[in-house]
Amino acid sequence: MNNIAVSTRVRFARNLKRYPFVGCMNLSQREELISLVKTALEKAAPGVFEYYPMNELSDIKAAMLVEEKLISHELDKDSGFVAISHDRTSSIMLGEEDHLRICNILPGLALGETLSSADKIDDILDQRLDYAFDENLGFLTNCPTNLGTGMRASVILHLPALEKAEFIPVITGSIGKLGLTVRGSYGEGTKVSGALYSISNQVTLGISEIESVSKLDTVVNQIMEREESARERMRKNDRYEDEIFRNYGIMRYARVMPLDEFMELSSWLRLGAPIMGISERDIDRLTVMASPAHLCGDTILSPEEINKKRADVVREFLGKGKI
Amino acid sequence: MNNIAVSTRVRFARNLKRYPFVGCMNLSQREELISLVKTALEKAAPGVFEYYPMNELSDIKAAMLVEEKLISHELDKDSGFVAISHDRTSSIMLGEEDHLRICNILPGLALGETLSSADKIDDILDQRLDYAFDENLGFLTNCPTNLGTGMRASVILHLPALEKAEFIPVITGSIGKLGLTVRGSYGEGTKVSGALYSISNQVTLGISEIESVSKLDTVVNQIMEREESARERMRKNDRYEDEIFRNYGIMRYARVMPLDEFMELSSWLRLGAPIMGISERDIDRLTVMASPAHLCGDTILSPEEINKKRADVVREFLGKGKI
Repeated sequence: MNNIAVSTRVRFARNLKRYPFVGCMNLSQREELISLVKTALEKAAPGVFEYYPMNELSDIKAAMLVEEKLISHELDKDSGFVAISHDRTSSIMLGEEDHLRICNILPGLALGETLSSADKIDDILDQRLDYAFDENLGFLTNCPTNLGTGMRASVILHLPALEKAEFIPVITGSIGKLGLTVRGSYGEGTKVSGALYSISNQVTLGISEIESVSKLDTVVNQIMEREESARERMRKNDRYEDEIFRNYGIMRYARVMPLDEFMELSSWLRLGAPIMGISERDIDRLTVMASPAHLCGDTILSPEEINKKRADVVREFLGKGKI
Repeated sequence: MNNIAVSTRVRFARNLKRYPFVGCMNLSQREELISLVKTALEKAAPGVFEYYPMNELSDIKAAMLVEEKLISHELDKDSGFVAISHDRTSSIMLGEEDHLRICNILPGLALGETLSSADKIDDILDQRLDYAFDENLGFLTNCPTNLGTGMRASVILHLPALEKAEFIPVITGSIGKLGLTVRGSYGEGTKVSGALYSISNQVTLGISEIESVSKLDTVVNQIMEREESARERMRKNDRYEDEIFRNYGIMRYARVMPLDEFMELSSWLRLGAPIMGISERDIDRLTVMASPAHLCGDTILSPEEINKKRADVVREFLGKGKI
């Protein structure tokens, strides 16, 4: 059942005392902040991170980091800065909405592990930097919706069966009452594609990180159970295997594949992964590989070329299987 | 270019003097006729034919013969009789519209060869039976549209590119003026599917068999040239290969396949045969194998079972290839 979960992400929003919020910082303050963070990280975890000033990254490289969910669209292309661990599970953005955005991401459902990884980075920086913290409000953040823990934990779930059963609005309604929210897989304001939904905590004030994550874990498990039952019902349909295999056949042989179609087809593929003998994790990696910037790599490709290359990459990926 | 032609068929309508037309024959006259024909065939070509009284054939076996185009739907299920050569290229129906329907069928475009094969059978029977023939009207037939040569020659052409270019009505209009006609691949009154069109002579009076066949041959060659040019244009389309391969992918993996969809998909497969390294003749054989009665074989299957078995047969067929 855990294969329903694509990935788990935890991020902390942190700001430092004695600095204005991001939008009001001047150049020397920004440089000071970057230097403080680099020094802190290198002392506590030497060689673990790579550092990228955003203005030194090409648009494609920056977009690749967004596709890997290591940075957000909101990280400023000129003044932004990011530290990324070599294993690509941790990133620290400077110059997003807050001074610091500490992000950890792991495959599958791994809330405890992801939270503890993010906590470690947070502790390292907390010991060496002077966080803006208030007894009553908790961590002070640029946007009041992050006050308190400054934490957002999110789990991306693959919910094709619940989507087909038109059950997502029911979930959205009921988990809203618990201080949780459902979004597209690239976070706030992003559309849903490939039946990938991000479930995350909305409330950060008056609740501890542990409580918040534990509540999310319970709800995510309930949703996964419902998805599993809905899949069980789908499997009883005479045309179920036929649909899985037809979509597989198109993926296996298409020469041109737009992103929207890829998301739709790969959702079928992920659903049918057990029948196909393909691992869901591999399909999730394929989804990143088939994203526009990853397809471009070092060269700028036209939209048509991207759609052709996506079909090539998918064919090569599936061609390795034995079906 | 010859791969555009699926098969060539020539049939002669013949009636015997001293017998009333089929609808007015009594049982003993029918039996006499069957006996005359069997004797004539066995004397001239011993062991070449198998003989089937229609009332001894199951509905499925009869339908299989229709699918192979060895008999027509119109052959009476009770009183009809058919002689079929072991190589399944010749059949003689008794008790269809006329006393005798001599039919020969060969793969591809082979008008000369098919005509001469049918002629041989016709000569054998002519020598031993007393054909109803009139100096002015030629062979006398039940339906006046067959008077004269009593011959219909038809070529089944696969015209997906001309169909897509909406050029078929133009062809239908222009060849009508030449005494030729365009029909569905199972002959008069049958609908077109899989872009398979039967081109045949309409006129039998005031023209010799040779003239008729030669005119048909010329026109068929012209249509094939036009189809070839239209295919050339299709191939220049960016999405051409993609469409071929997607349809191939669905055929290769579907678990359920209704007949209409099979005809549509196999039309794409036949068009893309050169790319796929599959021979058009093999695809034409698959089309017969994927027909309902052939799928049933010795057992009666439900429509759902037939659609599943069709998908199995197609998968097995394509699985032998290397793509």
